[in-house]
Amino acid sequence: MIVNFAERAHNHNWNLDPITRSLLDTDFYKLLMLQFIWKHFPATNASFDLINRSTSVRLADMISREELVAQLEHVRTLRFHKSELIWLAGNTFYGRKGIFEPAFLEWLERDFSLSDYELWIEDGQFRLQFDGPWTSTTMWELYALSILDELKTRASLKGMTEIDLDMFYARAKTKLWSKMERLRGVPCLRIADFGTRRRHSFLWQEYAINLARTALGDCFAGTSNTYMAYKHDMEAIGTNAHELPMALAALANNDEELQSSQYRVLELWQQTYQGELLIMLPDTFGTTQFLKSAPQWTANWTGQRVDSKDPFLAGDEYIDWLVQRGKDPRTKLLIASDALDVDIILSLHAYFSGMILGDATPHDFYSAADFLDPEKWVPSRRIRFSSGWGTLLTNDFRGCDPGDGDQFDPISLVCKLTSADGRPAVKLSDNYAKATGLPEEIERYRRVFGTAGVANVPVLV
Amino acid sequence: MIVNFAERAHNHNWNLDPITRSLLDTDFYKLLMLQFIWKHFPATNASFDLINRSTSVRLADMISREELVAQLEHVRTLRFHKSELIWLAGNTFYGRKGIFEPAFLEWLERDFSLSDYELWIEDGQFRLQFDGPWTSTTMWELYALSILDELKTRASLKGMTEIDLDMFYARAKTKLWSKMERLRGVPCLRIADFGTRRRHSFLWQEYAINLARTALGDCFAGTSNTYMAYKHDMEAIGTNAHELPMALAALANNDEELQSSQYRVLELWQQTYQGELLIMLPDTFGTTQFLKSAPQWTANWTGQRVDSKDPFLAGDEYIDWLVQRGKDPRTKLLIASDALDVDIILSLHAYFSGMILGDATPHDFYSAADFLDPEKWVPSRRIRFSSGWGTLLTNDFRGCDPGDGDQFDPISLVCKLTSADGRPAVKLSDNYAKATGLPEEIERYRRVFGTAGVANVPVLV
Repeated sequence: MIVNFAERAHNHNWNLDPITRSLLDTDFYKLLMLQFIWKHFPATNASFDLINRSTSVRLADMISREELVAQLEHVRTLRFHKSELIWLAGNTFYGRKGIFEPAFLEWLERDFSLSDYELWIEDGQFRLQFDGPWTSTTMWELYALSILDELKTRASLKGMTEIDLDMFYARAKTKLWSKMERLRGVPCLRIADFGTRRRHSFLWQEYAINLARTALGDCFAGTSNTYMAYKHDMEAIGTNAHELPMALAALANNDEELQSSQYRVLELWQQTYQGELLIMLPDTFGTTQFLKSAPQWTANWTGQRVDSKDPFLAGDEYIDWLVQRGKDPRTKLLIASDALDVDIILSLHAYFSGMILGDATPHDFYSAADFLDPEKWVPSRRIRFSSGWGTLLTNDFRGCDPGDGDQFDPISLVCKLTSADGRPAVKLSDNYAKATGLPEEIERYRRVFGTAGVANVPVLV
Repeated sequence: MIVNFAERAHNHNWNLDPITRSLLDTDFYKLLMLQFIWKHFPATNASFDLINRSTSVRLADMISREELVAQLEHVRTLRFHKSELIWLAGNTFYGRKGIFEPAFLEWLERDFSLSDYELWIEDGQFRLQFDGPWTSTTMWELYALSILDELKTRASLKGMTEIDLDMFYARAKTKLWSKMERLRGVPCLRIADFGTRRRHSFLWQEYAINLARTALGDCFAGTSNTYMAYKHDMEAIGTNAHELPMALAALANNDEELQSSQYRVLELWQQTYQGELLIMLPDTFGTTQFLKSAPQWTANWTGQRVDSKDPFLAGDEYIDWLVQRGKDPRTKLLIASDALDVDIILSLHAYFSGMILGDATPHDFYSAADFLDPEKWVPSRRIRFSSGWGTLLTNDFRGCDPGDGDQFDPISLVCKLTSADGRPAVKLSDNYAKATGLPEEIERYRRVFGTAGVANVPVLV
């Protein structure tokens, strides 16, 4: 027994076990959007609000305010490492080098900082507000979400015995492996990790994506987490999010500008990025109205991400639209990213990549064997399909607690843009339950954009 | 990152990772029998033979002879620690102190040693023979078995990746926990670990029994492994084994002495031990003949262990016999120890402890809920029943290898007495498939003892 006295003393005395280890520990699209904001909206102010939609989980009763502040303050002390910036400059993203401009990387190194924040407690919940230049508030989203996720995890782990902890993780590993086994061998599958924002912990996300890569090989396309991509030589995945159309809509001076702002975002985006980064997110104010009024040049974009509509319907709608606009859907990309897990990933893959449905409905469940049965599956893709697997990849511990508790179930934390230059921001989405913003503004937006194709579906994770 | 340079260098360079960490790492009954042999047969010679009955697993192709020799030689360098001997002297076993005589403990400290051995390879199998004073050969059994078990485990682990190893143990832990969950909450259950001889490894046995104690509380009665009992404050469980009646039978000078030798063992045993240690093992030459001819005083013994007969039949047979001999079966103990796992443990417990069978057969499967349902179960024990859970507690990795291999399936290693003072030893047992000894001797024994109640059942583990 050679005791590491230094390590043991350190383990008994350390001040902080930092949750955010690097400023790269964020979704890749945040960096793409940051460059976009830095370029086109350097003087715009933007406020973000972090809330817990799972109100029954009283986070402020589980986590001390001091712990939360210590983690948030720790992130503010971080700087991009030289090696990280050199990687951003030199690495190939989506097949292209030099996606990040030298001037932007210089700014990241010298001038980037995170805004201050307001933190208070209300009804047992932490409320966090970030206000300041958009370039200094936008990046808080992922740091703040993953910090709260992991502090909740740590609080729930505290009461467990060593043997229960061991069994807890053994079960979670077994569960994760079972998921991988169901996906392994399915041809033409394409899955990426989108699970940073609702992860169990940094280390568990790292474990899950390394397992996915081992089990799924090339079918695992990469991770949305830039730091994981950097650390493990994976592809960094992601393009853009709702905050861009929301901010541009908020900045619009009248209803007409509001309606066209959703395409103005795309115009600016394609001045900045090309190729596989041209992925639309048409659901911000409703997908159906977006596609209907979209200028013809939007049909040249590479694909779209479906985030709040039934992805079977959304995919069909996009395919029909592409055909209408004279484009071949088989060259386009459809990305689903809302509450995915193995069953729905396989069903969607079957539906869009060539399963012979017969009497089956699109939502039927499939096994890897179905995809290897020539009677059932003939590769004949209707559209390129890719799954952004989030919470249920990086935080599915349901049934793993030996004490049968539910304190590890993922909760619905969100950090949303609330205003741009002082003007209120709104998201409608394709699901009434997912709309955010002031009620009177939501009403105005619904008047401008209409509600065609919007459904009412409970939000799970 | 505080690196433990010394540990890291050590891990890269060590000579031997010893499998046997202590001479106490053996079944408790071996120590009871050793004292018995030391007392009554100090001058008797005894030979043991270790063989692998699972001939399809070619151990000598998996394990190097040098590794095996290094481990066997390591055991020979071990001595009983003072602290271990003091524990043997001062601990309470089965409610009694002072089970081990001071003179015996002194002999253990000063004079105990392990005999030499013959090792050769035949048909891809190691063959091990131990020959010498019975006091120096008997203890080899458990050391040699657990060494070969663990060397096989290590050989099978060698080819696995880190991620596969991690998943392998995660699955095994999950599997073990599922077993515990099925047993947890069943009233009046009594289970002991009998799994040293076929364990996956020392550390896994330690893990399994600690888990069992945590999950089952008082229903987990203890472990047959003396070192585990010592290290973890558990009850040491076990009384005696076939080698005693086999040796006394071998030493018999004629058929009459042969027939009565099976009771002579019991006479000597009750001169040495009392109370709960008076557990008969009546199957050595067939249970039915044993009970039929047994002297009346044997009915005063505390119980019997069933090792090779269908335990439902053997229990009924014992109960009937006790009633016939004017004893109340409900005060007696029945121990099953042959190839047990959760299903059979629960079925036997139901059968002997009060399940209302109705139309069910004794072999039906039960859940914990059945034992809590007053329509199904009324505690009304027919006999005290206890399960000696062996291989499938300490070495059930079936289905755990992510590569779907079967190299971790337990194999049937046995180390049997082959002769005493040069005379051949025989075991008949209640199962034709489990008889050991020279064919002509088996024939003679079958003539003397008969074959009443002997069945033919394949041997699993």
